[in-house]
Amino acid sequence: MLDTPNQEKTQLSELGEFALINRLTSSIKLSNKSTLEGVGDDAAIINHSGYETLVSKDLLVEGVHFDLSYVPLKHLGYKAVVVNISDIYAMNGIPTQIIAGLAVSNRFPVEALEEIYEGMLLACNNYKVDLVGGDTTSSASGMMLSITAIGKVKKGNVVKRSGAKPKDLLVVSGDLGSAYMGLQVLEREKAAFKSNPNLQPELQGHEYVLERQLKPEARKDIIELLKNLKVSPTSMIDISDGLSSEIMHLCKSSDLGCTIYEDKIPMDPQMIRLAEEFGINPITAVLNGGEDYELLFTISMGDYDKIKHNPSLTAIGHMTDSKPIQLITNADQAIELEAQGWKAF
Amino acid sequence: MLDTPNQEKTQLSELGEFALINRLTSSIKLSNKSTLEGVGDDAAIINHSGYETLVSKDLLVEGVHFDLSYVPLKHLGYKAVVVNISDIYAMNGIPTQIIAGLAVSNRFPVEALEEIYEGMLLACNNYKVDLVGGDTTSSASGMMLSITAIGKVKKGNVVKRSGAKPKDLLVVSGDLGSAYMGLQVLEREKAAFKSNPNLQPELQGHEYVLERQLKPEARKDIIELLKNLKVSPTSMIDISDGLSSEIMHLCKSSDLGCTIYEDKIPMDPQMIRLAEEFGINPITAVLNGGEDYELLFTISMGDYDKIKHNPSLTAIGHMTDSKPIQLITNADQAIELEAQGWKAF
Repeated sequence: MLDTPNQEKTQLSELGEFALINRLTSSIKLSNKSTLEGVGDDAAIINHSGYETLVSKDLLVEGVHFDLSYVPLKHLGYKAVVVNISDIYAMNGIPTQIIAGLAVSNRFPVEALEEIYEGMLLACNNYKVDLVGGDTTSSASGMMLSITAIGKVKKGNVVKRSGAKPKDLLVVSGDLGSAYMGLQVLEREKAAFKSNPNLQPELQGHEYVLERQLKPEARKDIIELLKNLKVSPTSMIDISDGLSSEIMHLCKSSDLGCTIYEDKIPMDPQMIRLAEEFGINPITAVLNGGEDYELLFTISMGDYDKIKHNPSLTAIGHMTDSKPIQLITNADQAIELEAQGWKAF
Repeated sequence: MLDTPNQEKTQLSELGEFALINRLTSSIKLSNKSTLEGVGDDAAIINHSGYETLVSKDLLVEGVHFDLSYVPLKHLGYKAVVVNISDIYAMNGIPTQIIAGLAVSNRFPVEALEEIYEGMLLACNNYKVDLVGGDTTSSASGMMLSITAIGKVKKGNVVKRSGAKPKDLLVVSGDLGSAYMGLQVLEREKAAFKSNPNLQPELQGHEYVLERQLKPEARKDIIELLKNLKVSPTSMIDISDGLSSEIMHLCKSSDLGCTIYEDKIPMDPQMIRLAEEFGINPITAVLNGGEDYELLFTISMGDYDKIKHNPSLTAIGHMTDSKPIQLITNADQAIELEAQGWKAF
């Protein structure tokens, strides 16, 4: 669990609240002019003069969203930040600050919290986001991270879920389904380890899907690319739950239907091979898997020429006046999509 | 636990994520012009044009911050909002939005979540704050609330912890120690109930301290009062952890010492009587108890005349050039204050 297992461990009870907070926040550097005050007062102070402020929150709960038996703590901190700022990019915004809550039971030493912070601050640094405050507390059992991301967007530039028009093209960035297959590999190796603790995990050859699961990135580059290409998405969402749910959200918010095509959907060869190995239809991993953190957006037909040769962007279908919300399979069958969301309860 | 125990209960697993979110958020009404978009997209959109934005977060964890054996869920939701917006008032700001995270195990029915939301929305309504988003998820065990409060403050009007000057007067609003004694009463009745489940809880005569514990209010009125009295605090903090810790924060941030006087500290007679009954020195409840959510602030001596006859405000001491941070007791002894913070680990 700890990246540096031989390091000396400090029990949380040895430090008081204030010493712990000092230790965790001492390496924070601020990089946004809009951050007037960060950690250290009752609230952080932000100046987004001339911009609108975006705010988004995600909770990550141990045993529900992550399993510390195979997720390194630094990766967990990194991912917690990334999944939140991904929501800000999905509004066509620029993330500027995060505020981080961390509840941990006393089974974690101080060094564990420091690794989480290290991961969070690495993500903050990569995306030029300031960690400006938070709350660190104990929990009766388990660990929970609660991240609130704050961003800015110029007036008139926000892209909501609700702006899609009939005939708009549906476009996705990157490829889909890999984060889910990465999770399957980790779960398989965990089960193998449980039945025989002497087994070495077989992770070789699965680097791409594992990285997609353990260290996802938010598509800041796509927001910049669209700006450079002078493409204004009419609606946008990030793919956290699986393509099916996200398409449903766009259609519902925009009050439209859509048709997407299985043969258009970008999938990585490693993901397809693994899906077959696991006896999973790759399209199922794409539709219901989730955690890809790619962007799904709609553009007007007139913008298609600007994106059609870009390897990072793929048109997968188009919006329609009314229902259904359907997928045309490789066998030329039309199937209606269903919302998934979590079913963790 | 549920206010309406005979009501039919809906298992969380019967609803999907999206149906649950719709059910919880359907009664939200927005009251701030600055809330451009609330619940329903990747992020909320806020326009604080001409103002600075304040952001604050608190986590409330079952078994650490609250005990559902005596805290009604509606009160829990109310308190979760109040303790967060209290931080915004403590910066001399006006809270405008909250974003709410809720992690619950499947032992809670949907109706339990609705009661929490009811309490949150009641607080939002009382303080004219908009609930603009959040995350609702399952937990492996127990309940956790994570609230982020967002507020605004006119440029130049923010009051930090760090602005106190030597000789400034230390002032508190309301009275202190009651929330802690309310907790003692609840803990006593819980213990009595455990040893004999036929006992009726003896809560009569303790209404004031119980209300202070179960349904605290943020001192919005004090911020308005100070404005009307044309008093500009030089530094300010809200009393969440106990007077001792909060004074330490002000002194540390302002790089000063202070002297406060036991006989000046405002205490309610019910609190004093109860403290004696429990064998606790009332000043201990004040210094180390916490959860009073009163405001502690400093003003220049020149402002004293403006506040001295106000029953809601009490000067309890003054800032000094340098250490110590001390209390002069009723027996005329000087004792140095110590930081407490949580010791829950």
